[in-house]
Amino acid sequence: MKALVYGGPGQKEWKDVPDPKIQQPTDVIVEMKATTICGTDLHILKGDVPAVTPGRILGHEGIGVITEIGDSVTGLHVGDRVILACVSACGRCSYCKQNLNSHCLADEGASGIGWIFGHLIDGTQAEYVRVPFAENSVYKVPEGVSDAEGILLSDILPTGFEIGTRKGRTKPGDIVAVIGAGPVGLAAVMTAGLYGPAKVIAVDLDDNRLARAKEFGATDVLNSGDDKWKEKIMGLTDGLGVDVAMEAVGIPDTFTAATEIVRPGGTVANMGVHGTSVDLAINELWISDIAITTGLVSASTLPMLLKLVAQKKLPADKFVTHEFSFDEMMRAYDVFGNASEENALKLLIR
Amino acid sequence: MKALVYGGPGQKEWKDVPDPKIQQPTDVIVEMKATTICGTDLHILKGDVPAVTPGRILGHEGIGVITEIGDSVTGLHVGDRVILACVSACGRCSYCKQNLNSHCLADEGASGIGWIFGHLIDGTQAEYVRVPFAENSVYKVPEGVSDAEGILLSDILPTGFEIGTRKGRTKPGDIVAVIGAGPVGLAAVMTAGLYGPAKVIAVDLDDNRLARAKEFGATDVLNSGDDKWKEKIMGLTDGLGVDVAMEAVGIPDTFTAATEIVRPGGTVANMGVHGTSVDLAINELWISDIAITTGLVSASTLPMLLKLVAQKKLPADKFVTHEFSFDEMMRAYDVFGNASEENALKLLIR
Amino acid sequence: MKALVYGGPGQKEWKDVPDPKIQQPTDVIVEMKATTICGTDLHILKGDVPAVTPGRILGHEGIGVITEIGDSVTGLHVGDRVILACVSACGRCSYCKQNLNSHCLADEGASGIGWIFGHLIDGTQAEYVRVPFAENSVYKVPEGVSDAEGILLSDILPTGFEIGTRKGRTKPGDIVAVIGAGPVGLAAVMTAGLYGPAKVIAVDLDDNRLARAKEFGATDVLNSGDDKWKEKIMGLTDGLGVDVAMEAVGIPDTFTAATEIVRPGGTVANMGVHGTSVDLAINELWISDIAITTGLVSASTLPMLLKLVAQKKLPADKFVTHEFSFDEMMRAYDVFGNASEENALKLLIR
Amino acid sequence: MKALVYGGPGQKEWKDVPDPKIQQPTDVIVEMKATTICGTDLHILKGDVPAVTPGRILGHEGIGVITEIGDSVTGLHVGDRVILACVSACGRCSYCKQNLNSHCLADEGASGIGWIFGHLIDGTQAEYVRVPFAENSVYKVPEGVSDAEGILLSDILPTGFEIGTRKGRTKPGDIVAVIGAGPVGLAAVMTAGLYGPAKVIAVDLDDNRLARAKEFGATDVLNSGDDKWKEKIMGLTDGLGVDVAMEAVGIPDTFTAATEIVRPGGTVANMGVHGTSVDLAINELWISDIAITTGLVSASTLPMLLKLVAQKKLPADKFVTHEFSFDEMMRAYDVFGNASEENALKLLIR
Repeated sequence: MKALVYGGPGQKEWKDVPDPKIQQPTDVIVEMKATTICGTDLHILKGDVPAVTPGRILGHEGIGVITEIGDSVTGLHVGDRVILACVSACGRCSYCKQNLNSHCLADEGASGIGWIFGHLIDGTQAEYVRVPFAENSVYKVPEGVSDAEGILLSDILPTGFEIGTRKGRTKPGDIVAVIGAGPVGLAAVMTAGLYGPAKVIAVDLDDNRLARAKEFGATDVLNSGDDKWKEKIMGLTDGLGVDVAMEAVGIPDTFTAATEIVRPGGTVANMGVHGTSVDLAINELWISDIAITTGLVSASTLPMLLKLVAQKKLPADKFVTHEFSFDEMMRAYDVFGNASEENALKLLIR
Repeated sequence: MKALVYGGPGQKEWKDVPDPKIQQPTDVIVEMKATTICGTDLHILKGDVPAVTPGRILGHEGIGVITEIGDSVTGLHVGDRVILACVSACGRCSYCKQNLNSHCLADEGASGIGWIFGHLIDGTQAEYVRVPFAENSVYKVPEGVSDAEGILLSDILPTGFEIGTRKGRTKPGDIVAVIGAGPVGLAAVMTAGLYGPAKVIAVDLDDNRLARAKEFGATDVLNSGDDKWKEKIMGLTDGLGVDVAMEAVGIPDTFTAATEIVRPGGTVANMGVHGTSVDLAINELWISDIAITTGLVSASTLPMLLKLVAQKKLPADKFVTHEFSFDEMMRAYDVFGNASEENALKLLIR
Repeated sequence: MKALVYGGPGQKEWKDVPDPKIQQPTDVIVEMKATTICGTDLHILKGDVPAVTPGRILGHEGIGVITEIGDSVTGLHVGDRVILACVSACGRCSYCKQNLNSHCLADEGASGIGWIFGHLIDGTQAEYVRVPFAENSVYKVPEGVSDAEGILLSDILPTGFEIGTRKGRTKPGDIVAVIGAGPVGLAAVMTAGLYGPAKVIAVDLDDNRLARAKEFGATDVLNSGDDKWKEKIMGLTDGLGVDVAMEAVGIPDTFTAATEIVRPGGTVANMGVHGTSVDLAINELWISDIAITTGLVSASTLPMLLKLVAQKKLPADKFVTHEFSFDEMMRAYDVFGNASEENALKLLIR
Repeated sequence: MKALVYGGPGQKEWKDVPDPKIQQPTDVIVEMKATTICGTDLHILKGDVPAVTPGRILGHEGIGVITEIGDSVTGLHVGDRVILACVSACGRCSYCKQNLNSHCLADEGASGIGWIFGHLIDGTQAEYVRVPFAENSVYKVPEGVSDAEGILLSDILPTGFEIGTRKGRTKPGDIVAVIGAGPVGLAAVMTAGLYGPAKVIAVDLDDNRLARAKEFGATDVLNSGDDKWKEKIMGLTDGLGVDVAMEAVGIPDTFTAATEIVRPGGTVANMGVHGTSVDLAINELWISDIAITTGLVSASTLPMLLKLVAQKKLPADKFVTHEFSFDEMMRAYDVFGNASEENALKLLIR
């Protein structure tokens, strides 16, 4: 089969590789119908994730059809159309039991970490993929859900919902600020709407992204190039700050900003992937009754979000800005690598 | 009357001052029967809290008897024996409605902050004290609750419960670590027991305090002078860390330690009053699904804790190590100022 | 002034009565700008609520302007435009502290029950009304909120939200059924949307009401005259039943139906006012992991819902089907008494 | 092997039967080291549970050692000492994902119901037992936990905790009443202590059981033969009733009593297995803001409770009043069938 293979920092190739095989009785093989590229894949290509070794097939999102099942698999069948969760789950360890699949303790590959596709085992930017712990890691797709909707459920929508909206304890009547309007930030904007906020304020440096944020449900937008943006946020509240401040960038400045705009009693939900530590003003914040939360998506809310997508309550396909065939994988990487100039959000590759 | 009056950094005097008077129809006057000294009072005397100006009567904890009530007070009467909450509450602003009295928005003195006794208005180290918003700020004491039990309910026990145990989301079966075994840390140790933890580990540099922690409910103790204490904590868990790490010291080292010993999915509850910022390893923690919480006590759980003290379910009087009369106020400060050498925890001054 | 005065079962009159006066320092007097009629008022007129005695001014909903304030009132001023909560709250008893104002323990009139307007004291179908515990019982109206929006916040929207949506533990992805599409049922339909349900199914005997339910956010409607309606509900789920079944009628049949259509693990939220007991199949339900909840509105969510109305996130004014002047009060009662034929939902009387 | 075999209503025999075999790759075989008898077993013997057919081996509680594992089992090994949960769980259906294993949707035998041992498949009153979905249904026992402690974790302690204490929303400071002091009621008494209640009141007709309730943590006991017992309960509260009323009998009178002694805002947690419907005074309760909950144990809290038992925080072995060998199985049934006269609570059979 063909697959996108990592060749070391800066190197990748769409090339022939052997087909995957069932290795454990809990595995299934899926023929991919659609996949996409994540910002994390770009990080891997820069060499930022040393656990990924040359020869690894990248990708952790996708939708496909089951072609083969392991001996102990009873709840899935050949021919089932399924979405692959970006995080695999054994379903029986203490973390999976609390729906924190991202900290699954089962060993598959070198580590118990739940994110393994395109990381510790071969991933989804391929014609076929082996899925471990399949009965806890793929979800059947109901009629009427398109591939474009489905690929958003592998990672982006659950991330925005679980790590932004829900860890942020968003509740009816809240004022929510989302700093960073890339795919994850926009998923937070969209899913925040599931808890009836009064206002959702999107903040970004890119006016195109802010325009899109409005389409995704933001009531107000602010360009963070304006050095008065934090004062303006305060002006959109009663002067005390927002109930929920979500960080979706991953740098110290935006993290610190989130702690500055949150009101006493509120929550800072970090979604960004950070490369350095940050100076936390605990000398000011100790008194403010806030919570700061972190997290990697578990995708345990995938089936719930899938119900909403199937009911057309969450317009997931709005994220897809470009379409490619599998053969155009290399060009797709070029476009996604220039997301800002290309005005690209998520790509549908099939 | 006599009162302990702040005279500027380093200066205090037990001296004659005018009796307090009713100023608002919601006030009451309380004749103090017992008070105590808090670590915060020592900070004020060092000049660390500039909002406290010379002439201010210190103290924010105590128990007494009502001698006069304002015109609109209907739920309290002259002669009622009451505990004073350290934080005053208007009872009707949006923060009081969510039981976050510490962020009460009503103006009494220069600020809306809920802690005003011995800070923005005269406090409780006096023979009489004026209590604003009395119907939301004092609580009648049932028969059988001693002064020694009562003074712990003004501040220390609610702080340990609200900011440590409850913000830490302590739940049955948890392993809890409390770093710092002073009064607040010990209140967290004692009140953590209200949620059925499997283990409560106390950490401190002082073996006397650790011995006391065991009496207060700690199942394990570790001296943090041992540079392997964090490894030892891990050894008391399944190797992944504690469910709840409470910080009760207020310095960067202990805050950072709390973030290092908490397991994925756990909570760091900061109780310490910090004077400097801290370097937060968000580059490691972003993936760990933790929450870091902060807060100033609201004392909104005072009536609930009072029920437990009245039922002898919380041995609050264990905190009292020394007793003084009001006339010995200056000596009481000397003893509390040398708490470690004097092996002092809380003083009962009456 | 003029007011609608109850004269005993079946008797009411719009007539001259003395103006209300401040009685307690916590009172205010409000000049009513708009009021409305509730189903409860019709019950009172039938003589079903013996606590209401002849001479009582009816009504517990409305919006107006403060004309006088008691001596201890500091947070409200003459000229403030305010919404009156249907339930009064002392703000300091143990029930008010947990936002269960409906069980307020303070005595005003003969009872501690929170609903007193038009019940134990004179109500809001009048030109002026005295409001006890005003600072906990009225809410300032922001610019841009109309009288038609405001009167829905006194009772109907908080009832639907607190007793239906929230007690029903509605959550994203849920399938919700609301049995009864009168004002309270429709308020539940509308506010259920604040928690992102996948489907909201409205059930009623009246097709006009069902058509309106669709405008209020119902995704599906079923006429309960169809004796297969319960099977059809099951068909709208995965066959196991709805997550939340709300009862908004108040008779045994609909209550029982709610317990039959709820899935294992789900919730039956009773909103109906019942006149008789009901046979509960605990022999079947003991195993089903359900919760059955009851409640009288506390209106403690009024300020939150007001924020959403002000942001145009909840189209409260959709409830108003007819408008009258105060002078037409008697005719308004006629129309509301024939709500079904008149296709009336809520009346704006001003 | 030997096993206790049901022979139809009124008939049972300890006799030779074939050894169980692995049937699915997810099965294990366990050699039983200890088992016990449940009130449900007596119901089955009366013929009350028609799904149990002649030839079925009874029993759903126990502890043993794994002797054989299925092909897909990786987390368990031959020689592991394990507790068997009374409820089997596939671990991957929507109910198992929310830890409601009792409503597991996987088919094993004729039904998806989670309780299958000694019901739909052969049970634990035998020398060997086949365990389906083993990795989600048995738990390794740490060193230092005895057989007597372990058998309580199969069913009784999780039932008291999940269906009584937790569904009852027990919280610190609460007053809890438990009606019925049999094994399940006593498990509720003991586990209520995990949430720091102020009082736990046990109610029963049998003074022996009440004496035992005090040993298990009850602060007060009342004999329900006293026709003033409900007034006395009110007298143990502030006159408004208890926060949590747990029903552990299963008859209409005690269910109704629970709804009468609960305070506004409180919870009735039904634990009893009921044979008839009950008249519910919804005409009085509609206004009282209560929740009535039901449920069958899921045993999803077994591992958490096991941690507490291992730490000697829950004295589970207090339940064991009699010990028998497997060969004395028939005599054990005689004793348990006369539990009241024999003053028997739980039997350890090994």
